[in-house]
Amino acid sequence: MSQIVVFAEAAQLLTLDGGPITARGGAAQGELGLIERGSAVVRDGFFSWVGPHAALDLRALAAEPGASLEVHECRGKVVMPGLIDSHTHLVWGGDRKDELEARLGGADYEQIFAAGGGILSSVRQTRARDEDQLHAEAIRRALRMRRCGTTTFEIKSGYGLDLETELRQLRVARRLRDADGLRVVATCLAAHALPAERRGPGGRESYLHELCASILPAIAAERLAEFADVFCDRGAFSEHESRTILRRAQELGFRLRVHANELGPTGGARLAAELRAASADHLLHIDDDDRRALRGAGVVATLLPGTSLVLKKPYADGRALIDAGVPVAVATDCNPGSCAIESLALVLALACHGNRLSPAEAICAVTHNAAASLGLAHRVGRLAPGLAADLLLLATDDYRDLVYHAGSPLIAAVFQGGERVA
Amino acid sequence: MSQIVVFAEAAQLLTLDGGPITARGGAAQGELGLIERGSAVVRDGFFSWVGPHAALDLRALAAEPGASLEVHECRGKVVMPGLIDSHTHLVWGGDRKDELEARLGGADYEQIFAAGGGILSSVRQTRARDEDQLHAEAIRRALRMRRCGTTTFEIKSGYGLDLETELRQLRVARRLRDADGLRVVATCLAAHALPAERRGPGGRESYLHELCASILPAIAAERLAEFADVFCDRGAFSEHESRTILRRAQELGFRLRVHANELGPTGGARLAAELRAASADHLLHIDDDDRRALRGAGVVATLLPGTSLVLKKPYADGRALIDAGVPVAVATDCNPGSCAIESLALVLALACHGNRLSPAEAICAVTHNAAASLGLAHRVGRLAPGLAADLLLLATDDYRDLVYHAGSPLIAAVFQGGERVA
Repeated sequence: MSQIVVFAEAAQLLTLDGGPITARGGAAQGELGLIERGSAVVRDGFFSWVGPHAALDLRALAAEPGASLEVHECRGKVVMPGLIDSHTHLVWGGDRKDELEARLGGADYEQIFAAGGGILSSVRQTRARDEDQLHAEAIRRALRMRRCGTTTFEIKSGYGLDLETELRQLRVARRLRDADGLRVVATCLAAHALPAERRGPGGRESYLHELCASILPAIAAERLAEFADVFCDRGAFSEHESRTILRRAQELGFRLRVHANELGPTGGARLAAELRAASADHLLHIDDDDRRALRGAGVVATLLPGTSLVLKKPYADGRALIDAGVPVAVATDCNPGSCAIESLALVLALACHGNRLSPAEAICAVTHNAAASLGLAHRVGRLAPGLAADLLLLATDDYRDLVYHAGSPLIAAVFQGGERVA
Repeated sequence: MSQIVVFAEAAQLLTLDGGPITARGGAAQGELGLIERGSAVVRDGFFSWVGPHAALDLRALAAEPGASLEVHECRGKVVMPGLIDSHTHLVWGGDRKDELEARLGGADYEQIFAAGGGILSSVRQTRARDEDQLHAEAIRRALRMRRCGTTTFEIKSGYGLDLETELRQLRVARRLRDADGLRVVATCLAAHALPAERRGPGGRESYLHELCASILPAIAAERLAEFADVFCDRGAFSEHESRTILRRAQELGFRLRVHANELGPTGGARLAAELRAASADHLLHIDDDDRRALRGAGVVATLLPGTSLVLKKPYADGRALIDAGVPVAVATDCNPGSCAIESLALVLALACHGNRLSPAEAICAVTHNAAASLGLAHRVGRLAPGLAADLLLLATDDYRDLVYHAGSPLIAAVFQGGERVA
């Protein structure tokens, strides 16, 4: 029996389907494919039809033999794609709220990191937890994120920094997908930081060797991650080291993401272009040449304005990236230290106020462009026939309220594959 | 029959009752009066007992003759006072979303204002609506704000700028209180801007005369507002004009609030101290002398970090105010132009990241100190015997999550006078 679900007569239906919205396509990032009084038909979890309500023959659907029909009246509401959070570190142990208070008292993130806090504190707490404990903490966060509109989650490892714990983090990500039914894309970020026990003589070289000879191959063998990522920045891995790791990851079949140019102009953005990474993330310190390189290589620029807010750093210049033709995505960076914000809806608003995106551009950044950066542009991120029916109903008739009334309870319902999940 | 409601065994009960928290008191702004495993007893809408759960005799309460007993199990949750939004412009007509988009495209707020946009655009839209229309728009906003934790609302007029519409705005505020049951404190802000029709020769003087001779007296006669406020800043009213208006308001029995030093060092903060206003608001451009004056006069400094975010202005230095001993409150400024953010919970987090408050200081700023700025410190803002039982249940065991996970759905329930309202 076929299950038909209709979302009927939305004040605004944002299809994001006005053509490709990334640099290689051509349409502007701000084109939402907005249909006024629009409807969408979902069959067995996938969109089968999207268009103006006047063109929808509801009677024919109701009369279809062997089909069940459910109609959601969407008058006065916005219907739009579920949000896609393309950069999170969702699986971690413990928290770093004390560090947050220290930072609010004036301590600097790089100082905290150098003193063994920061990432290394989360590594200690994550290593100390078994898979069930890590899963219990992660699913609570994921469900809160979903209530804020997120239907697809990229999840990075990187709080293990040893084979065993990196595998454990990624197994939790897989469990969130297979047992909990979340849409998850996993990324190996074993190159997140040099672990504490390798900070003596020769440790750096030995960790790089372990990464390339042991950790990445083991994760590839278990197919635990689609992507590999490197924190290419001051205090983490140099451009040269990052190139070595990322090339090895490519050989093993991983697609690439790069933490680039967050703390300084450290070559990460150019490296992402050189290796045709799917995404270069952060990008606080880039210039025109970097933007041209990203555009030329079709790399999605992923901006993380929540982290700028929490760390009191400048915001990446999203306006300049879009004007240069670089496709821009926006994500939470949800992690225990530099930004534990879980709501991608809130971060969408910060992208407007901080990164100078328009509301329409920001919506594209957390839907279609985020999907593109994950290699999922033909599965999620738009309301279009054949794509999974992941969508939000907003309790407003104007999508701009997500920015105008940032933080208000506007996300009235969240659907994944046509089923209500929040 | 007496109605008893118990909030039992919260992981953290934030009483805010460790003594007075304003400059004239002495205790630090960050003292939350936190009780671990704490309980609160509410009788007929008011707290009758607050303390450690171990000291609570639930059986005695259950055995009380002629009383109904309801127990809310709060294990693993935080119980804290309802939020008090001490600076809003909640009653307005229409919206200014187009202006938001223009600003995101680079237009400046003062330029928009000079061109007849800004406040004057809202004045046109507000004048064009009758009381029912204004009420319908305002109650929708207020209910969203309440879902975000706000249980007391200060509401300013100031989008009428003529007698009839100022009265209409304030009657809507009264209706929100009397018919809708919200806790509302009303403020006359007829001195919000010079209305468009008075921008010719002599108009300025004639509007000031009307304000003092007609508008303020009429509002006083109808007892429609407890406070009077002036936008003392560049492009609005000078320090001299503001003094004239505020003194007249004082003669008529109004207590005072002042929009001060938002756009420049315009003397508003010093004027607020001189006139012993209850609150000086914004305060982006003040110096040590201003802080000393505010402290000496016991004026509450009300910070509005949402507006700084939206207008891309600097954040007021909350750290310096607290270090100087000035009591600090934080509010949304919810208004159609410079900041339509409705969630005081979100703004609490912005006060940490922007104004450099600690999470504890920010919680005091949106509860007890906000109540003090409204003259309500002995009615709301703390969990203490005799005060109204306005409180929040948080779906977490650590109040710092309001900042750490800003934007997440942590406010699980909102109670006003002991009754659940959201």
